[in-house]
Amino acid sequence: MIDRVLELLRSRQYVALKQLISDMHEADIAEVFSEISDRDSMLRFFRLLPKQTAADVFTYLEPDIQQKIIEAITDVELRSILDDMFLDDCVDLIEEMPANVVQRVLRNTPKDERALINRYLQYPEDSAGSLMTNEYVSLKKGMTAGEALKEIRLTGVDKETIETCFIVSRDRKLEGEVTLREIVLADPDTLVDDLSEDYIISVQTHTDREEVANLFSKYDVTSIPVVDQENRLVGVITIDDAIDVIVEENTEDFEKMAGMNPSDETYLKTPVWQLARNRIVWLLVLMVSAMLTGAMLEHYEAAIAAIPLLVSFIPMLMDTGGNCGSQASTMIIRGLALCEIEGKDLFRVWWKEIRVALLCGAVLATVNFIRITIQYHDSGIAAVVCCTLVCTILIAKSLGCLLPMLAKSLKVDPALMASPMITTITDAASILVFFRFALAFLSARL
Amino acid sequence: MIDRVLELLRSRQYVALKQLISDMHEADIAEVFSEISDRDSMLRFFRLLPKQTAADVFTYLEPDIQQKIIEAITDVELRSILDDMFLDDCVDLIEEMPANVVQRVLRNTPKDERALINRYLQYPEDSAGSLMTNEYVSLKKGMTAGEALKEIRLTGVDKETIETCFIVSRDRKLEGEVTLREIVLADPDTLVDDLSEDYIISVQTHTDREEVANLFSKYDVTSIPVVDQENRLVGVITIDDAIDVIVEENTEDFEKMAGMNPSDETYLKTPVWQLARNRIVWLLVLMVSAMLTGAMLEHYEAAIAAIPLLVSFIPMLMDTGGNCGSQASTMIIRGLALCEIEGKDLFRVWWKEIRVALLCGAVLATVNFIRITIQYHDSGIAAVVCCTLVCTILIAKSLGCLLPMLAKSLKVDPALMASPMITTITDAASILVFFRFALAFLSARL
Repeated sequence: MIDRVLELLRSRQYVALKQLISDMHEADIAEVFSEISDRDSMLRFFRLLPKQTAADVFTYLEPDIQQKIIEAITDVELRSILDDMFLDDCVDLIEEMPANVVQRVLRNTPKDERALINRYLQYPEDSAGSLMTNEYVSLKKGMTAGEALKEIRLTGVDKETIETCFIVSRDRKLEGEVTLREIVLADPDTLVDDLSEDYIISVQTHTDREEVANLFSKYDVTSIPVVDQENRLVGVITIDDAIDVIVEENTEDFEKMAGMNPSDETYLKTPVWQLARNRIVWLLVLMVSAMLTGAMLEHYEAAIAAIPLLVSFIPMLMDTGGNCGSQASTMIIRGLALCEIEGKDLFRVWWKEIRVALLCGAVLATVNFIRITIQYHDSGIAAVVCCTLVCTILIAKSLGCLLPMLAKSLKVDPALMASPMITTITDAASILVFFRFALAFLSARL
Repeated sequence: MIDRVLELLRSRQYVALKQLISDMHEADIAEVFSEISDRDSMLRFFRLLPKQTAADVFTYLEPDIQQKIIEAITDVELRSILDDMFLDDCVDLIEEMPANVVQRVLRNTPKDERALINRYLQYPEDSAGSLMTNEYVSLKKGMTAGEALKEIRLTGVDKETIETCFIVSRDRKLEGEVTLREIVLADPDTLVDDLSEDYIISVQTHTDREEVANLFSKYDVTSIPVVDQENRLVGVITIDDAIDVIVEENTEDFEKMAGMNPSDETYLKTPVWQLARNRIVWLLVLMVSAMLTGAMLEHYEAAIAAIPLLVSFIPMLMDTGGNCGSQASTMIIRGLALCEIEGKDLFRVWWKEIRVALLCGAVLATVNFIRITIQYHDSGIAAVVCCTLVCTILIAKSLGCLLPMLAKSLKVDPALMASPMITTITDAASILVFFRFALAFLSARL
């Protein structure tokens, strides 16, 4: 489909192109833009779109393409797009643009909206305030369902969300919420107050956006009202924004857990130097730690010279320790992120990991014992390797659960205590333990 | 709050308890059940809940608690819960229960519903069919908005979703969709066909559920119709189920990427032996691979005996290679999961990783060169370490992008090609390269 659009655009068959576009979803049209390389064709294509479609497609575009288009179109065209955009999409747009583009955008929004946008921009980027929209329907306490329906018909067209309406008192305090479904299905004379749930889930403007997203999945709601400190309704967060947050936060966790600074853009859009910069800090930190582990090996040069075979077990011990640690830490970090594990579970979790470690350790040690005795006929070395293995796994699993939970209680992101960090620490531990056991068990031969 | 409930339950203050419950959300009441240990109190608490609340709370409970309750209540009580449950929740329940409980549940559902449940149970677990509900409103082609509203008022009460209604032809083919919002806001005489979008996103019963979830976030929709091969409407998937899928699929990816078989239950609910079993297979596979790496070291015993210092660089080289590989593979696996990267991007991605690898390699090699020359005054070893480092990083980053993309094209889950797998392979490569360089550059001293 995309190829067909590009083909028609290239050969300037505009009638056929318009026909094709009219059957496409806005998100798919937006995807076409990512495939157009020159600004001229991009602009030609954008100007082909019907007015309302153009505004919808615009909100689906990647920020860099939005910027290119804004820079190329006239003020009149820009104003027409901004007019059709919802306020929260407009705020998102401004947050992504460089200063000169922001000025142009603000100059072309109506004055009252500009004031509102400025207020929204002041909420911290990760807060509920930055996610919310003010385009919702509020109903007055004491209205009937019939009156509410009339109010919705009157004011709903411009609102981003009318599926859930909010009941407010005269001083705008949030008193209840009622879905469009309930209003439609109810007897027109029922009071909206009676349709409202007793228990309303709401968040404050400064609530962390990850917490907000968790509430959506916990309570199966499609919108959550945002209130200020006096419980006055200031905005609404809708579920489509919550899904975006869930996806973004997960991506951030994946990146942090692999020892990278998270990037805002998708992989293919992030420049090479930016990718390198995101990765290099952690690589350096971890490399220096690994050097310390290496320095420990220098202490045992005599032992290595006496029994060179010892060296050949180092990769296995290091890798197994690292893998065990990352298994545990991944489970714990994920559990903490989904609020399935809390600080008070510390000892329960640790005790669980110790038992898992003993089970895994027993199996791996047995396999190693058999292999080493068969291959080298050396039960001394076999004993050293097996004891080290069990200790390493115990240390790795313990660190894997304790460090993320410690981070959480210190208000540091637990995702930083993932595989790379745990691996580096257990590496040092496993080598230390290995040579301690070697010196103890094989002292006669060293 | 939970503590207060448990306190009142323990001291049997039922009046105060009922009062407290009436102000709580069903999801929060369900959480209380996880804290009750004995079956007797659990049952006492469950019987305190008003009938409709009990059914709602029931759908929020963890499967093991659902099972305990089903086993303890009478058939009459069970029937009353099942009556109030939506069909798709009922199917979910049955999928989680052991055979004897399933039989009891099916015996207590009405005959017609039982047939439907049986049909739903035949869809593969990861398919759109297993996610959908049949409780939606379908409208006939040619209806006006006013008639549609009447139809919704008549049939909507029992439907799980009425926010989006579907327009079907006489032979049940999907012809369009229209939101409750559009119906309410439109002039009552407008035809629903004219309100429908031109482009309807639908999936087939066998579409993978992860793909379905991606569609929700791509198109910002709140429900997606499911059709059979003849485009006949068979069900609807709602956004709350899509969120659950996103969260579950992410958890699965996290687990696979840390070298574990995914578990269905939350961490705290999974028994120790099950956790150990999920982890041990990969630990064994990776341990055996690491043994092979170790075996390679045996070939270089002479070199190690001549320059024991070489050993001390092994941990740093192994760890850095592993970290570089897991950084790359994480970015690629995530990009593939979100459909940001596709098979055709292979060379673009690889070329990007090669440049990132050269940048990272240059920085890390420089740091190492300075350290080694200062600390050991040995530029020969410094050269060996630096060359190895750059090669290792190039190999690690290349494997980190190529293996997940290869897996994807072979229809294997790319998440399996994550950190542990890449680390194990680059370990072997880095040690091989290290000693090759050592033999080449330091031959005079070996």
